[in-house]
Amino acid sequence: MHEPARAIYPGSFDPVTNGHLDIVRRAVENFGALTVAVLRNATKNPLFTADERRDMFDEAVRAAGIEDVRVVAFDGLLVDFARQEHATVVVRGLRAISDFEYELQMALINRRLLPHLETVFLVPGEDVSFISSRFVREIARLGGDVSSLVPDVARRRLDRKFPHPGGATP
Amino acid sequence: MHEPARAIYPGSFDPVTNGHLDIVRRAVENFGALTVAVLRNATKNPLFTADERRDMFDEAVRAAGIEDVRVVAFDGLLVDFARQEHATVVVRGLRAISDFEYELQMALINRRLLPHLETVFLVPGEDVSFISSRFVREIARLGGDVSSLVPDVARRRLDRKFPHPGGATP
Amino acid sequence: MHEPARAIYPGSFDPVTNGHLDIVRRAVENFGALTVAVLRNATKNPLFTADERRDMFDEAVRAAGIEDVRVVAFDGLLVDFARQEHATVVVRGLRAISDFEYELQMALINRRLLPHLETVFLVPGEDVSFISSRFVREIARLGGDVSSLVPDVARRRLDRKFPHPGGATP
Amino acid sequence: MHEPARAIYPGSFDPVTNGHLDIVRRAVENFGALTVAVLRNATKNPLFTADERRDMFDEAVRAAGIEDVRVVAFDGLLVDFARQEHATVVVRGLRAISDFEYELQMALINRRLLPHLETVFLVPGEDVSFISSRFVREIARLGGDVSSLVPDVARRRLDRKFPHPGGATP
Amino acid sequence: MHEPARAIYPGSFDPVTNGHLDIVRRAVENFGALTVAVLRNATKNPLFTADERRDMFDEAVRAAGIEDVRVVAFDGLLVDFARQEHATVVVRGLRAISDFEYELQMALINRRLLPHLETVFLVPGEDVSFISSRFVREIARLGGDVSSLVPDVARRRLDRKFPHPGGATP
Amino acid sequence: MHEPARAIYPGSFDPVTNGHLDIVRRAVENFGALTVAVLRNATKNPLFTADERRDMFDEAVRAAGIEDVRVVAFDGLLVDFARQEHATVVVRGLRAISDFEYELQMALINRRLLPHLETVFLVPGEDVSFISSRFVREIARLGGDVSSLVPDVARRRLDRKFPHPGGATP
Repeated sequence: MHEPARAIYPGSFDPVTNGHLDIVRRAVENFGALTVAVLRNATKNPLFTADERRDMFDEAVRAAGIEDVRVVAFDGLLVDFARQEHATVVVRGLRAISDFEYELQMALINRRLLPHLETVFLVPGEDVSFISSRFVREIARLGGDVSSLVPDVARRRLDRKFPHPGGATP
Repeated sequence: MHEPARAIYPGSFDPVTNGHLDIVRRAVENFGALTVAVLRNATKNPLFTADERRDMFDEAVRAAGIEDVRVVAFDGLLVDFARQEHATVVVRGLRAISDFEYELQMALINRRLLPHLETVFLVPGEDVSFISSRFVREIARLGGDVSSLVPDVARRRLDRKFPHPGGATP
Repeated sequence: MHEPARAIYPGSFDPVTNGHLDIVRRAVENFGALTVAVLRNATKNPLFTADERRDMFDEAVRAAGIEDVRVVAFDGLLVDFARQEHATVVVRGLRAISDFEYELQMALINRRLLPHLETVFLVPGEDVSFISSRFVREIARLGGDVSSLVPDVARRRLDRKFPHPGGATP
Repeated sequence: MHEPARAIYPGSFDPVTNGHLDIVRRAVENFGALTVAVLRNATKNPLFTADERRDMFDEAVRAAGIEDVRVVAFDGLLVDFARQEHATVVVRGLRAISDFEYELQMALINRRLLPHLETVFLVPGEDVSFISSRFVREIARLGGDVSSLVPDVARRRLDRKFPHPGGATP
Repeated sequence: MHEPARAIYPGSFDPVTNGHLDIVRRAVENFGALTVAVLRNATKNPLFTADERRDMFDEAVRAAGIEDVRVVAFDGLLVDFARQEHATVVVRGLRAISDFEYELQMALINRRLLPHLETVFLVPGEDVSFISSRFVREIARLGGDVSSLVPDVARRRLDRKFPHPGGATP
Repeated sequence: MHEPARAIYPGSFDPVTNGHLDIVRRAVENFGALTVAVLRNATKNPLFTADERRDMFDEAVRAAGIEDVRVVAFDGLLVDFARQEHATVVVRGLRAISDFEYELQMALINRRLLPHLETVFLVPGEDVSFISSRFVREIARLGGDVSSLVPDVARRRLDRKFPHPGGATP
């Protein structure tokens, strides 16, 4: 009998956005369950610690009522984490051309390192497809209102990181 | 309990290539089973009839020893076929940027027409990622050797369509 | 004193879609008035005649309550039409990368032919950015429901062109 | 009556190039007047201070004899600056695909934050379309001659930043 | 000792443009000599016959005073022609992203068919990089002035194909 | 008589990969000889010093038995180095769309600075086309096995930089 695919969704998620949650929903629909894998050392100077990023994602998933999702942080190589989790599928959202290229190279590299690990790409909803963590951080830093871009937990934590007199959020 | 995803792989497959077989292998691995859906009216002047395209794909899948694949031809809208098959996933291979854009638009249109139908993209092996049916037809028409680009059944049928004295195949 | 820009929005519009209307709205907002210029010989075998395409666009604009828009059909070179209309701006919607490249070449060619004619690109709303006339025609031909993709007048005419027993529209 | 569009042209302009000036000329032609908005905190380590960047742009505009242009530096979010300026249009030059993607995301984000703010893209002249501030800085740093890439005021200030014995400029 | 590379420049050249001549000049500079290879059956309905396309290219090369260029028409597969000519290099101009993708696939297919055949890409001058035969044909058909886009011999033949009362050319 | 082209292959090569070696082989085949030019100050914080990068590349070329290749490190502007070497050709490998754009801008800038310097692009083998130094560094840092991505000398030096207990290499 066919073993059901075990899917992981890796990323830095600094912080989780509505676009990430959209992909989580679609992945669970397709694969039955999902492990969100927060990269500890994803970028040199993340805004939030790995634990904060994991906690925010976890809380956002619960608040959205999405089931069968586990959120963990991990160190090291994605293929090593995938091997340890017996994962067969890496889920990624496809937003834009430049994403696509980077993602394609990553997928081919990961396959070279762990041949049975397949990367599948999902298409986010068009109302969230232009959201990136990088823009979110920038807007929050400058006092902008990110409440339509990220789940509530991320908005609150961004507000705390970048307090603005008068506030940008309602 | 989570219902396993039912996946279809639509295309004109005029003719099936090694790139298509590569995607079929990966899709079966991920989704447990696959319906290859040959579009009857995919292009205005296909080289092969829909029945020929279906038969070639079917024979190629068997010759390659891939199990749990059904090959059918269909008429009309993909979303109607998907509804009738209770399919939840459309599988597509991602080859290049121009593919990506067209595919992305198609995926969003199909989602608009049938919201629960998810399109997932798989990455073909790099040794077959540059093969397209269009190039294959052109090379065969001009007497070139397509034996490294398509399964044997397609090569034989192309030879018959475009007989070349002296032959291009060994 | 600065002469206000006179803007034209050229295209084949076969048929008008919600994406086109979105661009019209934005262009009027920016330039105060707009001439929609329907290319008579845009493609070899248009689905609708130039007069039908003009009438549909005109009716759609009125039904949407957008003011200061004139819809005309024209023959020949865009730069000749622009010269005759004393237009200084060509408006185009940017949807995708492949659009972008073709549009960029067109803009540079038109500038070479008529130096003071500037092409400006507007970004359609993300909920309509994936709609193209080509997909719309294909879906309608196969009996699909295009009511969320085109204005009502286009949907009605497509229904008449491609009658489907049972109907795809509600 | 239609209110004329008020256009701003934001950027880091570190330093102003001939490509920027080309866009300014086209924007004034289209919109009658233009505010160049120099981002104070555009990048982490700009080569020139915001005031230097503003002054260089201002001087370059005057030296080129372009009228109806105001150059200011601003802090914070672009949409907040636009609101304060009663701007309705953000002008951007489109150079390349990677630009296009980033710009598109930015345009959609800004529209989400300030719905009536429209981003319009202009096509620079092909003789300046490959110039970027980043390349200019790099060439000047290594002693190259940037006199065909930037206005004279920027060349002089780059020379002072990166003095080279023998000099690269005539 | 290293055998000098023998280069061919294949294309449909329907008709030759200033962009093609620009690439020819650069290729001769790099490879010492060049064979321009006009595809007899490049497209289904070429505007000019293969012999006309070859003659125009030949005349344009002579009129431009470029030496060491041979212009021939050929039938069949490019790799067969290359083999017969003992060519080791295929020269192509890179204009745009969509070009790039198609060209990349072609280069990989040709290498698969004839492993020692290398495709090298040259960058056309930016003042001709937006010119394509397709736009040229379209503009000429509609009575536009193509004299800044193609060599004189092509302009004259286009004028004869598409006579316009009053004429668009000086 | 035509002077043979003198080709240089510039890059940071931090470290050399199998993709770089693939391009070197193709360039020597086309141009008879090649100078690999290692940029001393290519990036702000290279993993290896310029001398280490040069030595690794040199050793890799010898170990691969490729002749007529000289590896040098250089300071300053590429066009100045090219002038000093009497080089007429800059060789670059084309991997992906984002490469392509950056490379195109660079080629046009270099041509502006040194008009007779032509940039030619070669297509790497598809089995190495997804390898980048950046991914290699990242994988090595996290303890992954890079032995299928880089020549042996680079693998050994990466192992020494990032010692992992138990080791990732066989």
